[in-house]
Amino acid sequence: MILISDNLQITHPDIDRAVQELDPGPVQDLVRRCVVAGADAIDINSGPLVREPEKKMAFLVAAVQSVTDLPVLLDTTNPRAMEAGLRASKGRTVINGFSLEPAKLERILPLAGKYDVDIIGYLLYPNSHVPNDASERLGVAVALFQAFQKAGVDPERLIIDPVVAPVMWENGNRQDMAILSVIRTLPDLLGFPVRTIAGLSNLTTGRGPRVKKRLLESAYLPMLAEAGLTMALMNILHTETVQTARACEALVRDRIFTWAGW
Amino acid sequence: MILISDNLQITHPDIDRAVQELDPGPVQDLVRRCVVAGADAIDINSGPLVREPEKKMAFLVAAVQSVTDLPVLLDTTNPRAMEAGLRASKGRTVINGFSLEPAKLERILPLAGKYDVDIIGYLLYPNSHVPNDASERLGVAVALFQAFQKAGVDPERLIIDPVVAPVMWENGNRQDMAILSVIRTLPDLLGFPVRTIAGLSNLTTGRGPRVKKRLLESAYLPMLAEAGLTMALMNILHTETVQTARACEALVRDRIFTWAGW
Repeated sequence: MILISDNLQITHPDIDRAVQELDPGPVQDLVRRCVVAGADAIDINSGPLVREPEKKMAFLVAAVQSVTDLPVLLDTTNPRAMEAGLRASKGRTVINGFSLEPAKLERILPLAGKYDVDIIGYLLYPNSHVPNDASERLGVAVALFQAFQKAGVDPERLIIDPVVAPVMWENGNRQDMAILSVIRTLPDLLGFPVRTIAGLSNLTTGRGPRVKKRLLESAYLPMLAEAGLTMALMNILHTETVQTARACEALVRDRIFTWAGW
Repeated sequence: MILISDNLQITHPDIDRAVQELDPGPVQDLVRRCVVAGADAIDINSGPLVREPEKKMAFLVAAVQSVTDLPVLLDTTNPRAMEAGLRASKGRTVINGFSLEPAKLERILPLAGKYDVDIIGYLLYPNSHVPNDASERLGVAVALFQAFQKAGVDPERLIIDPVVAPVMWENGNRQDMAILSVIRTLPDLLGFPVRTIAGLSNLTTGRGPRVKKRLLESAYLPMLAEAGLTMALMNILHTETVQTARACEALVRDRIFTWAGW
């Protein structure tokens, strides 16, 4: 399981300020901590970047890549910011992401082909509503894959995000259990070993006791790992969750178990 | 998921001494700690009790039941000890357990019918060897269920233990992954909602760093919970593992999630 930090977010005031002032320091400090904590890739959640999207995304990508060679995920709904990030990036880059929403099909999806990069597709309806159960999610996955093929992008470039539901939603935990069967079913359904990603922090979005939030993360992650999840997008500074992820790897990977190396 | 303490074991020198001297104190102290830690039932692992099995098992059951009304599991290979425990017990009692081993089919299994109690059946070959993969385990489960029906015991009395493999065994982790599919498949295979139990401590039997052993427990337990495991036999004094089990419950149970009550 590849661990991707979701820590770099413009919603954090110090990161927002750094972007406004084009001051790489706070971004570099945070990314260094994420690398030390065990991140295998860095998600750059820039938000929509309404003003000067190209300049700001290029700044963010350059700031991150000034301290690490890890792959970066460009996490924005703004196609101008996305393309600027793709141009700016000197290393492996992933588009995060598109969905059946018309604006994203038209302006985000084609960038995957143009820049020949991986792209994450969310299992959401065209109006961005969340499917209600496993079969609805699988239906959306088929539609997403068809849109993807229609755009002429190499199918192997697709990474599917089944969209983890906050447990506080009505039926949230039930949906999160359904997501496990979606992850198991997708490769057979689509006919190739499609990769999957899940946003673990979504699970505990909203109010709730911190200790129990961490426990839920550490309980859900092994279920995702066993279901075959390829990548976990997570708060990489949650040490216990990272340790749990390493233990999951030692258990689920089809190799002889050893105590070393995790 | 029902959590059963595996802490009361005659292999612990203080428990062995208590049994030899018929001194209930150490047993009572340990059981009180297990109850406080959250045990839903107490496994009494008396070993074979070669000398005075009846007297010693009756002593153990009385010592446990002097401090708790929780169900007890009688965990011995000695049929005389088993029957003495069944006679002595004043509360709900589970036989732990039988297998296809002829001596157990002949002398342990009939006790389930005679005393009308639940009984745990291990997925082991008649020579006590461990099946090598999921399909072998399912084959043993069918044979076990047939033996069970032949003995005339109510099928609903059966609890199946798929026998967790130590990760240090060759292919141990692969077998433990196979066990998850066995747990998922058993109800359909046997045609009723058969309950399952797994010995979590088995996972980390042998040498290994303590911290990583705990991490493996906390990583494997959610996988078992999601597979539908009914009961976890575990070191109930491992606080983090118990907390993980509660988080799993909050996630997997088909009820609206709340932060309270776990």
